[in-house]
Amino acid sequence: MSSQQDIEDLIDLMARLPGLGPRSARRAVLHLIKKRGRLMHPLAQAMQQVAESARECLRCGNIGTGDLCDFCTDERRANGEICVVEDVADLWAMERAGVFKGRYHVLGGTLSALDAVGPEDLRIPALVQRVGDEQVHEVILALNATVDGQTTAHYIADELSGRCEVSSLAQGVPIGGELDYLDDGTISAALNARKRNAF
Amino acid sequence: MSSQQDIEDLIDLMARLPGLGPRSARRAVLHLIKKRGRLMHPLAQAMQQVAESARECLRCGNIGTGDLCDFCTDERRANGEICVVEDVADLWAMERAGVFKGRYHVLGGTLSALDAVGPEDLRIPALVQRVGDEQVHEVILALNATVDGQTTAHYIADELSGRCEVSSLAQGVPIGGELDYLDDGTISAALNARKRNAF
Repeated sequence: MSSQQDIEDLIDLMARLPGLGPRSARRAVLHLIKKRGRLMHPLAQAMQQVAESARECLRCGNIGTGDLCDFCTDERRANGEICVVEDVADLWAMERAGVFKGRYHVLGGTLSALDAVGPEDLRIPALVQRVGDEQVHEVILALNATVDGQTTAHYIADELSGRCEVSSLAQGVPIGGELDYLDDGTISAALNARKRNAF
Repeated sequence: MSSQQDIEDLIDLMARLPGLGPRSARRAVLHLIKKRGRLMHPLAQAMQQVAESARECLRCGNIGTGDLCDFCTDERRANGEICVVEDVADLWAMERAGVFKGRYHVLGGTLSALDAVGPEDLRIPALVQRVGDEQVHEVILALNATVDGQTTAHYIADELSGRCEVSSLAQGVPIGGELDYLDDGTISAALNARKRNAF
């Protein structure tokens, strides 16, 4: 039963994607087979193309197609600011906000004593190097507000102290957030960082 | 920014799969790029292969790679029983149960006055034809227990009356089901179809 086998193999591979299980992978594959002209062929080709061309930027760790990514080759981005993120997904989230106009540095994870991740496993030495090479005047730490993220932020701030200004994202009430649903830590952070004369 | 564009295109295509939205498509694509050797290349190839080879069986409507699907070419399946299902997903569900040993007939939908789906839009004439050609003695209607499914079942039963025996799946309490969580319709169907001397 070779034809069923091809389809079963495809379902098994799809089921390994995050957010898809065996059942939703079956649904997705059936949907693909039904729309093989308009969706499955283009998707297979797009996937092949990205699989062949995608690689990590040698300088910042972002994903691109050349040795350097689009941000690192764009001279307008060389404004002396580097935004440090944990992951490429975080870089994309920052870009969707559309406010930051400088360059990025993707660490590729956070320091973690439990998982034995040290500074040399991340791109922290490369960041220190870049701060010297690229006339950076401010490093913005956009790391997750988790224990590992904040530990990593403190470590990087120590490494860069005296070399450039180091800032981090503000903590407080998210836009659209309701106080009743916020945790105690967020409310106390927002109260401590309250803005006077804001109105 | 052509390299980003390739990745964006892939995300857009992935987001058109059922069960994936823009956010989960981004996560899936990032996961794929991280595992491009072990997952993305094989997935792209498997997808290409199925996209090129998959097509509908001319006889029963199942998905296979030839003119006839694996069930229709397997002579051991020619036991005079045909199981009628709405969709290929339902056929797969029946096969997972592993109890039915005959052949299938995939309607490709249900009769629906609202959506203007008539008998000629489904494979109902082909089913009547098969019952004559293949010495079928029983047609098992495994259609969904919805209004459209049951309407279709009644229509097919009328069409086949006098030609062969027509049966349908039993209705009742699902295995592992708790009475407290079942709807009234299921409970009354189970009570009406109660088995005497079952123990």
